[in-house]
Amino acid sequence: MDLPRLLPSDRLLRGTLLDFVADPFLVPEAEAVRYLVDGLLVIRDGHVLATAPYPDLADQLGHRPVLDYSGKLILPGLIDTHIHYPQTGMIGSYGEQLLEWLQRYTFPTELQFADRDYASRVANLFLDELLRHGTTTALVFAAVFPQSVEAFFEAAAARNLRMISGKVMMDRHAPAGLCDTAESSYQESRALIEKWHGRGRLLYAVTPRFAGTSSPAQLRMAARLLEEFPDVYLHTHLSENPQEVAWIQSLFPGHRGYLDVYDQAGLVGERSLFAHGIHLTEAEWQRLAQARAALCFCPTSNLFLGSGLFRLDQAKRRDRPVKLGLGTDIGAGTSFSLLQTGNEAYKVAQLQGQPLSPYQTLFLATLGGARALNLEETLGNFDPGKEADCIVLDPRATPLLALRQGDRLPTSLEDLADLVFSLLILGDDRAVFATHILGEPVNTQLSSQG
Amino acid sequence: MDLPRLLPSDRLLRGTLLDFVADPFLVPEAEAVRYLVDGLLVIRDGHVLATAPYPDLADQLGHRPVLDYSGKLILPGLIDTHIHYPQTGMIGSYGEQLLEWLQRYTFPTELQFADRDYASRVANLFLDELLRHGTTTALVFAAVFPQSVEAFFEAAAARNLRMISGKVMMDRHAPAGLCDTAESSYQESRALIEKWHGRGRLLYAVTPRFAGTSSPAQLRMAARLLEEFPDVYLHTHLSENPQEVAWIQSLFPGHRGYLDVYDQAGLVGERSLFAHGIHLTEAEWQRLAQARAALCFCPTSNLFLGSGLFRLDQAKRRDRPVKLGLGTDIGAGTSFSLLQTGNEAYKVAQLQGQPLSPYQTLFLATLGGARALNLEETLGNFDPGKEADCIVLDPRATPLLALRQGDRLPTSLEDLADLVFSLLILGDDRAVFATHILGEPVNTQLSSQG
Repeated sequence: MDLPRLLPSDRLLRGTLLDFVADPFLVPEAEAVRYLVDGLLVIRDGHVLATAPYPDLADQLGHRPVLDYSGKLILPGLIDTHIHYPQTGMIGSYGEQLLEWLQRYTFPTELQFADRDYASRVANLFLDELLRHGTTTALVFAAVFPQSVEAFFEAAAARNLRMISGKVMMDRHAPAGLCDTAESSYQESRALIEKWHGRGRLLYAVTPRFAGTSSPAQLRMAARLLEEFPDVYLHTHLSENPQEVAWIQSLFPGHRGYLDVYDQAGLVGERSLFAHGIHLTEAEWQRLAQARAALCFCPTSNLFLGSGLFRLDQAKRRDRPVKLGLGTDIGAGTSFSLLQTGNEAYKVAQLQGQPLSPYQTLFLATLGGARALNLEETLGNFDPGKEADCIVLDPRATPLLALRQGDRLPTSLEDLADLVFSLLILGDDRAVFATHILGEPVNTQLSSQG
Repeated sequence: MDLPRLLPSDRLLRGTLLDFVADPFLVPEAEAVRYLVDGLLVIRDGHVLATAPYPDLADQLGHRPVLDYSGKLILPGLIDTHIHYPQTGMIGSYGEQLLEWLQRYTFPTELQFADRDYASRVANLFLDELLRHGTTTALVFAAVFPQSVEAFFEAAAARNLRMISGKVMMDRHAPAGLCDTAESSYQESRALIEKWHGRGRLLYAVTPRFAGTSSPAQLRMAARLLEEFPDVYLHTHLSENPQEVAWIQSLFPGHRGYLDVYDQAGLVGERSLFAHGIHLTEAEWQRLAQARAALCFCPTSNLFLGSGLFRLDQAKRRDRPVKLGLGTDIGAGTSFSLLQTGNEAYKVAQLQGQPLSPYQTLFLATLGGARALNLEETLGNFDPGKEADCIVLDPRATPLLALRQGDRLPTSLEDLADLVFSLLILGDDRAVFATHILGEPVNTQLSSQG
């Protein structure tokens, strides 16, 4: 590899660089994981210019400032493929499974997002929490009110974040104050797309809540938006809970199952992301794979609502792999941290006797999430040219993590796997030492940047 | 109630006092929970003298110093009924279920505890972690080496803690360097009991690891210790994993099941605590209830090892309730925090469609644990005369908790339940604002104690 010529304005980060170049569910980990124990990440104009062993560039550095994260891990920013920003303040609402939980907690909470100022306040707090937890890109449910989307996108634009969101479409089986109509949801979504999609780093997702709260006419309007704006996303829920699945089947008797409701409406494609997918049939797995649609695996939420255990073995079957990301699903999820989400992903796998390696988990939270969002050309690893959102994890952030690591400096793929696993199991926001957006630190515990 | 006359040396804590007077699994919560929104906890000579509404004692206070924890919850210290101190540094060891996990990680780790200095270092760190997480009493596995118990008890005595521990008895199916013999385990345990049991606040537990690593002769020796020292405990594992259960049945063919192995040896009584009990038969549930033996429910461990889902509905069946405590089961458990353990206890219940209320969870971690340990006359709530180990929880410890609570001051049983639930779901060591041992703060974030 040719070494780059550094410019004075380049942003330089030194540390253990770790990212993915392929899917460790499908190829051996040695082929999927890329790491540089003492690496330098060179960022120019917000994009990755190069990565190199630090010693190879040391004599070019002179007095250039290097952010020295030695002894820490530098990763691509984490990607949360399913989260509801209006539910930030209702995490840990007690005692119900999905359908009752929506009625009792979610709908009353979301009613508050008709208030633009309130929405702005929560959106700002939400994004600060994401960044504090090392999440730099997310696919985000707003509320039904267009102003809730405006508030979110403004807050994201102010931080220069790669964020995807959309107005909830919901025209039935919800309180009147939260319902739109097929027509108004179309018009409002269309206006938001025209205003926000592709503005800076922002992208739009057409967002019917789920088949239970959208009439067939509204689902057709959602499909019309996808036809008119072929590069927006479709973001909704699928097969989260057995009662929900049965209810959808009763609402849509002329369909071959839950996914088919979306499919007949024209909503299943390679830019479609479906949260959950816990109770899928083999035909549905095949259809998702064939359509190149993605699922969002949300373990803390699935456990919190007692929804069931996601089938990683099915999702990653080599003969028909389905694109897959991790999601916190705040507020049914119980942590903003994708590390803690990885902790519970492991437990979901263990309960089913399935392996889930630390690298596989980290892949889902980085390059896997980027692929689920069709953003792998844009971000998700440190390939030159990609947007340089990255985070720094401190493997000794708490007394217990420090004890767990001992004095060793991991240098092998296997040692690093153990380090990553300890961060997934014991880490949380405290382990996120720094977050950089397009190279710039927005959140760092470095006391001096010299 | 007569108000106490305060003495200058009394320790006074002001805050929202919350404890239990009965089991909320068996009686209505209004009868089980006791709370004082603005309460004063009066501690004299390390014991609870009284609790009272703060205003009732305000005019007696004069210039006496009051530790002002207003706006925070003051609870009895948390009780961890199952934890392995030698495994502190191996939390988050990847990829195995119980039997392989023991061979691959646990046994090599525990070999280090032949070194008394190393054992002391870990014991001190372990106890500091417990206190930081609000755990003031625990039933603790040491290692097979008597010096590992010495190290633990010395560290506990230096902190004046109510702690229970014992030497692992293990004479087969483990590496030679970790095995004792039936006879040596008897002699060593006996010497430790004579030296430590009842010394200060320390108590001893006869601790065969589990039936798989003790010969019938060793189990009989354990029973002999219980006969000779009728007020020590029995602490072991039971029915954690299906392969383990099958293995025990093959090792002990003349028995009616796993529990019966302990029972025929004479190890099932009202001072016996069995960790896990996930795969029990109805006859075993009945026997545990009838013997007044206790189980330790360890949800983070059960999920981490994929052991299975504990049956709370069976454990708390009203016609034959079994004494029950919560355990972290470090190092198979993934958090020292009994709050986070409560988070995952809720998820285990939800996956089975069972309710588990915030008060029920908190009961398990306080008075329920005390009952499981037959210590309810000594600690577990704020009854006058009890040892005054207590903790202070900050409901606004993190940005997310602060948002979740809003501006309300909980005043009703229902509001407080929601507050407790938010702490179980979102809280961790950061929510533990202070820990007091026999009234004295050992760990507090109060900046001035005036």
